[in-house]
Amino acid sequence: MRAELVAVGTELLLGQIVDTHSAWLSRELSQLGIDVYYHTSVGDNRNRLKEVIRQAGTRSDLVIFTGGLGPTEDDLTKEAVAEVLDRKLVEHSPSIAALEAIFSERGLSIPPSNYKQAFVFEGGMVFSNPNGTAPGVAVTQDGTTYVLLPGPPTELYPMFEREVRSFLERNRQTEGVLVSKVLRFFGIGESHLVERVEDLLQNQENPTIAPLAKEGEVTLRITAKAADEATALKMIAPVREEILRRVGGYVYGEDDETLETVAIQALLKKQRKLALAESCTGGLIAEWLTSVSGASGAFKGGVVSYTNEAKENLLGVSPSLLEEHGAVSMESALAMAEGAQARFNSDLGLSVTGVAGPDPSEGKPVGTVFIGLAQKGAPTRAFNLSLAGSRQKIRIRAAKFALYILQERLKKGEQTT
Amino acid sequence: MRAELVAVGTELLLGQIVDTHSAWLSRELSQLGIDVYYHTSVGDNRNRLKEVIRQAGTRSDLVIFTGGLGPTEDDLTKEAVAEVLDRKLVEHSPSIAALEAIFSERGLSIPPSNYKQAFVFEGGMVFSNPNGTAPGVAVTQDGTTYVLLPGPPTELYPMFEREVRSFLERNRQTEGVLVSKVLRFFGIGESHLVERVEDLLQNQENPTIAPLAKEGEVTLRITAKAADEATALKMIAPVREEILRRVGGYVYGEDDETLETVAIQALLKKQRKLALAESCTGGLIAEWLTSVSGASGAFKGGVVSYTNEAKENLLGVSPSLLEEHGAVSMESALAMAEGAQARFNSDLGLSVTGVAGPDPSEGKPVGTVFIGLAQKGAPTRAFNLSLAGSRQKIRIRAAKFALYILQERLKKGEQTT
Repeated sequence: MRAELVAVGTELLLGQIVDTHSAWLSRELSQLGIDVYYHTSVGDNRNRLKEVIRQAGTRSDLVIFTGGLGPTEDDLTKEAVAEVLDRKLVEHSPSIAALEAIFSERGLSIPPSNYKQAFVFEGGMVFSNPNGTAPGVAVTQDGTTYVLLPGPPTELYPMFEREVRSFLERNRQTEGVLVSKVLRFFGIGESHLVERVEDLLQNQENPTIAPLAKEGEVTLRITAKAADEATALKMIAPVREEILRRVGGYVYGEDDETLETVAIQALLKKQRKLALAESCTGGLIAEWLTSVSGASGAFKGGVVSYTNEAKENLLGVSPSLLEEHGAVSMESALAMAEGAQARFNSDLGLSVTGVAGPDPSEGKPVGTVFIGLAQKGAPTRAFNLSLAGSRQKIRIRAAKFALYILQERLKKGEQTT
Repeated sequence: MRAELVAVGTELLLGQIVDTHSAWLSRELSQLGIDVYYHTSVGDNRNRLKEVIRQAGTRSDLVIFTGGLGPTEDDLTKEAVAEVLDRKLVEHSPSIAALEAIFSERGLSIPPSNYKQAFVFEGGMVFSNPNGTAPGVAVTQDGTTYVLLPGPPTELYPMFEREVRSFLERNRQTEGVLVSKVLRFFGIGESHLVERVEDLLQNQENPTIAPLAKEGEVTLRITAKAADEATALKMIAPVREEILRRVGGYVYGEDDETLETVAIQALLKKQRKLALAESCTGGLIAEWLTSVSGASGAFKGGVVSYTNEAKENLLGVSPSLLEEHGAVSMESALAMAEGAQARFNSDLGLSVTGVAGPDPSEGKPVGTVFIGLAQKGAPTRAFNLSLAGSRQKIRIRAAKFALYILQERLKKGEQTT
């Protein structure tokens, strides 16, 4: 089954917003075994939109639109599809009732412009929208199914989960599924990684293996197409094994795992509690860790020490140490990690201090970063990095390195780091 | 001048990565007065890619491709354009020399596969790539200019800044520019905001006014098309004035400003220093503030207090207060704000404590959030919010509210908050 996605809205073409829906829908469709061949963004322009609809009808079995279902005159998706297919739009009384409920709850009458949202394709499908005024709609003609979904993420995602996925599952014309397994690497560059699995990459067909590098991490995605999930997983297994045999030492996680979820899981498993002392990363590591549900069982807290005074008062770093070695130093990283561990009374203390830029500091070049790791009953260690890139990139890479060092320690014990 | 953007890579169609380049390039092109009519993503498939190239040639004057210039067999963009246009690719000696320099620096010889990257269009343009092995290339045929740029952001953005923007500026066929002004609102919902400027939205033509809601913020973008920037700004000014007259009380910033840049600027201007005590936001506010260059002049640091013990030890919140009222309470927010201000010896202390979910805590429902604001010489205040959404959404909205309250205080003084 060939699918394509069409995002509608002039704000996309102006670059005001990034089309994240298409990537999300693509992942969902790939899990349903539906191949996506094109993403298109087009503005709120009737002629160009109709041209895109016509073309999609000639080349795809499934076309999913996001956006352009709002109440304003700019919202044209449904009208344009109706015109291209020459299909009638008819009033849908449950949607009228839903509109009435929404507006009466706010003590308002329905604005005339909103009524058009309650019109749906004659002979088509309707997906209810508990989070907004636009129902989703679908219609099939000449072998192509057109699915029109609202643009706001708070409406799109729940609607897809509740009704659209199962609709697609029932209607997909496919003999199989696409199943992917992702291996996540840290501490090895993409080119070095690819070099060591080059023969596997060159001979790939099914499963396929796709490398991807992002912010210091590299992933390998192994994707198999098969009649069912179990068969696909059986095809993936030996490829995964072979990759792990060659470069498994750099794997920190698989599939949706991230450095922060792996760190939290490892802490919970070992029943260890962590505290942080962040300087140049400014709270980034704390923010990542606490974005994981259940982090409170593994993370006691952190200090963002953006001044020497804060390093002294809140982490107990000695003024003479700071004066002698500077805030960006091996010694400071060690003292910060120990300070965090002591002040929060935790098992581990992790610290980051460095120069994120844009300007050098203490005579140290931008990108100089020290990471400290203190652990009860083990000597405190520090690591010196020299990172390239923008301020934000240096912060992100420093935070990832720190989490990588932490999870290596938790995995392999004290002797290895 | 009609432009379209084509992002090439199967990873886009699998949803492994989000196409952020097209939004960025769209903003750049709009500043050059070049209208973008389509974004397309297509996979590493020769036939479909060639079909997209052919279509783009029929409908656009400028086609910018990102991705598919790498060394592997999957990287097809240049070869596909050459085939569609029937143009020859020729060896480019400066690019060969650049390749040799890159690999000899690493002590390696050039892998045979990389040589194809040094081939460029005969009679075309070459954009050098100091950050990678693929030069950018451009070629014009039958009135359409095809620009091919590398996909990695670390290569694409500098190449655009250094050479591509000026190339486009020289080659654009346009009589004017598009200029935008963005007004940024907080504390008012999109529907309420739109209601109060509805007549302006309905009668818009040039300038246009586009509302957009995102994570608790709403923006209005006023865009004028004119012969030159000064004229466009003159057209925008009265519209901006009228909007400010009606709903200016909710404006916190304009254009690229964010709540965090506005907060840092206001602190610097008033020569005030801030400290934070974050519980449910887990370092998010600290991370935002420290992502602003120059934050160290305004921000002393923060404590991420993810346990009661941390609130007691690092912020001096009394155990009896926590026992009596709980960690998520007005009283705790007040004490945390005062604790942060005292421990960091800062002018202001800002605190957030709440239930981000997924589960309720202390019998308080998910979304309950308290924000505290302490200031030297003023009574400490606390604010109670009830936020909806996912864990991550609640954290983001709580952080934004806290920064909004802070900047209101800095702008209007103590009496208003």
